[in-house]
Amino acid sequence: MGQSPKNIAIVGSGLVGSLLGIFLKRHGHTVTVFDRRPDIRTIEFSGRSINLAMSNRGWRTLGKLGLEDEIKQIAIPMYQRAMHVNEKPVYFQKYGKEGEAIWSIGRGILNRKMIDLAESEGVRFQFNEKVWDVNLPEAKLYTGDSEKGVWEEYQFDLIFGCDGAFSRVRHKMQRRSRFDYSQDFIDVGYKELTIPPDKNGNHLLDKNSFHIWPRGRFMLIALPNLDGSFTCTLFLPFEGEISFEQLSTKKEAKSFFETYFPNVRNQIENLIEDFFKNPTSAMVTMKCYPWTYWNKVALVGDSAHAVVPFYGQGMNAGFEDISVLDDLMNELGDDWDSIFSTYQKSRKPNADAIAELSYRNFIEMSSKTADPMFLLQKQIEKRFAAKYPDKWIPVYSRVTFSDRPYSEALKIGDKQEKIMQEVMQIADIKEKWDSKMVEEKILKLMDR
Amino acid sequence: MGQSPKNIAIVGSGLVGSLLGIFLKRHGHTVTVFDRRPDIRTIEFSGRSINLAMSNRGWRTLGKLGLEDEIKQIAIPMYQRAMHVNEKPVYFQKYGKEGEAIWSIGRGILNRKMIDLAESEGVRFQFNEKVWDVNLPEAKLYTGDSEKGVWEEYQFDLIFGCDGAFSRVRHKMQRRSRFDYSQDFIDVGYKELTIPPDKNGNHLLDKNSFHIWPRGRFMLIALPNLDGSFTCTLFLPFEGEISFEQLSTKKEAKSFFETYFPNVRNQIENLIEDFFKNPTSAMVTMKCYPWTYWNKVALVGDSAHAVVPFYGQGMNAGFEDISVLDDLMNELGDDWDSIFSTYQKSRKPNADAIAELSYRNFIEMSSKTADPMFLLQKQIEKRFAAKYPDKWIPVYSRVTFSDRPYSEALKIGDKQEKIMQEVMQIADIKEKWDSKMVEEKILKLMDR
Repeated sequence: MGQSPKNIAIVGSGLVGSLLGIFLKRHGHTVTVFDRRPDIRTIEFSGRSINLAMSNRGWRTLGKLGLEDEIKQIAIPMYQRAMHVNEKPVYFQKYGKEGEAIWSIGRGILNRKMIDLAESEGVRFQFNEKVWDVNLPEAKLYTGDSEKGVWEEYQFDLIFGCDGAFSRVRHKMQRRSRFDYSQDFIDVGYKELTIPPDKNGNHLLDKNSFHIWPRGRFMLIALPNLDGSFTCTLFLPFEGEISFEQLSTKKEAKSFFETYFPNVRNQIENLIEDFFKNPTSAMVTMKCYPWTYWNKVALVGDSAHAVVPFYGQGMNAGFEDISVLDDLMNELGDDWDSIFSTYQKSRKPNADAIAELSYRNFIEMSSKTADPMFLLQKQIEKRFAAKYPDKWIPVYSRVTFSDRPYSEALKIGDKQEKIMQEVMQIADIKEKWDSKMVEEKILKLMDR
Repeated sequence: MGQSPKNIAIVGSGLVGSLLGIFLKRHGHTVTVFDRRPDIRTIEFSGRSINLAMSNRGWRTLGKLGLEDEIKQIAIPMYQRAMHVNEKPVYFQKYGKEGEAIWSIGRGILNRKMIDLAESEGVRFQFNEKVWDVNLPEAKLYTGDSEKGVWEEYQFDLIFGCDGAFSRVRHKMQRRSRFDYSQDFIDVGYKELTIPPDKNGNHLLDKNSFHIWPRGRFMLIALPNLDGSFTCTLFLPFEGEISFEQLSTKKEAKSFFETYFPNVRNQIENLIEDFFKNPTSAMVTMKCYPWTYWNKVALVGDSAHAVVPFYGQGMNAGFEDISVLDDLMNELGDDWDSIFSTYQKSRKPNADAIAELSYRNFIEMSSKTADPMFLLQKQIEKRFAAKYPDKWIPVYSRVTFSDRPYSEALKIGDKQEKIMQEVMQIADIKEKWDSKMVEEKILKLMDR
């Protein structure tokens, strides 16, 4: 079914907003994107980014527009985790099967590229224009220099709120009765740091790895950039014994990096400079419902479902929202009531699932990576999955390398966990972990 | 320890705001209460109220001011539930031990009285003055006729947000990073109805009972007023087979009341008139944290913790907040940092507990009151509690007739429930429920 052209506003020129703009343009609509900030192509990026890890759901959505190859030009495939455990040589864990990778992309670089692409398709951008209010039933936007100043009124047919976890559009929906909403912050913050290239412009660590220095309650990660540098993120509790609160002087920061991350010792001056230059940011899980207002307004991406970044799925989930909307536009034509209601009903359980999975990964990283029984369990699962690849697809692969629903991954993951809990009860599991008996036990439990 | 006088603003002239005003005045402070609405003493009340059931925590707080007797003049004790089950005579369930009661008070009547009392103590009220913004670190309030109009700035030493579940003060705190927040609506709405007095001004139903017509997914309740009338509340799903959505004509409403509430048939004209005159309201559980900003701003009552009304504890919990603040002012003198931080740390788990208990009561009323096994379980508990009153205090009594923490009631209640789950597994429990064996089983399980 075709669609009759609509005059559509998108609030937010981030990754989701600009990509949705291209999709809507291809469906024949007129699209204007508003952003309260300046054009990201004209400014330095903020220094509070975590590099993106594009995986299957993201690529699949870009693939629908034929943009996959073009974006892969600015991305670096990471086939494995590089684990930097103190007093051990670096070791590697493959992410998936042969050739399966997640792709490192700088948020700023991708966003600039997406806006270029959207503009070349005819999407109009109005930067530095602050949306202060939305008339939901009439799809009107109000913008102006300040909340209390003179506002301009715009009339649209549809409005999409792609304005992130602290969305203004959602904020307006939130004041209505019967709007469910939650925001939960974790007590760990993050800070962007950089490892620069060597003097020949090459990467100082393996380029095709996602580098992790797990330290229990805190950790450092590093993702490669095209220019030979790595964008690092330090995750650290806000308060407590080892925390941002405790690192207030250069001396304290130096001692912290030297103690816990000895193999980046050569980068220390750089790390410390970044540490005091860049802001400390908080992380939130945000859930809400409904995501739409009549056939007029819809939330897409982080404005509808923000997750903590520990599964690397925030952008991928937002892009998948767009993919679902695209399918529904093809299927339902001009019936925006049905498009919006089907969209929110089908996406909500998946958004909740990836929120849960992301939060669990945070807990797992903070408290379980030091537990030998947990590591043994992972080893048993890995062995079994290698032997029975069709019977046991790990949750990570279901989330990252598949396009099946997140809610399915969560459900199957819970079943697998239950099975493994029983397996770990086997007496002498430490000795017998790689035995035929354990294998058969798992097979039997799976048949239940 | 004494307190040096502060200039304090309270936002909201509801029950909690006006009562807190009196307490603060008694501690020697200057108190100004702002309310965006007109003086409730000058207007008709809204027709969207549920009568209040004052119980121990509320009375205890009023008692500290010596106001208990005065307020009891405008309250009616309810010693029992009167259960109106179709095709059965009305039967009664005592709330507690001899003389224990919850007290019915009209919200409007109590609020007017509290404002009178506060004014006579020297609390200043500024009605019809809308607070639009709060400067949290500087304790400044901004008021004006409209959000976009000219604002007046007020400087205070401390600000208390007592402005209810949709608090403006909290709204400002909510925009900060690391502020946890959730609002969850239930799919049942409510509507205020009235049963007028008979022609002699007397109550048509037993005056000292809380009347309930439980009907599974919906129910009607009636609480007595001093003038011989009853304030009724109809709880009914918004959507579905039997729902507000389905009752759009007088004919439909009439058939609904006649079918499900035959013993109020004589009141039907009145009930139907109210049904179409009064608004349908939604119910929300709201949680947030933190409740305070430095030593400058604190949330008290519904603005910090709104609960669904099925335990009758909303106002009682708000009054208990005030009681805790009063104790802390006595104990900590001028150390407002400690007063606020101790207040929020001690009250938060109790607010979460009463939210959980209130929500469970909603689920229990909606889905379990028709389950014969659930009713049998309650009967066994009741029998045991009567025999061992020191060993088994029901959760309802812990919440309603005690001043022990809500969180303790929840915890002990969970333990009791676990015991009862095991008891209900006894073969032939239906026959043996009042046997010595069951009694001994409970005693044994309690010792574990």
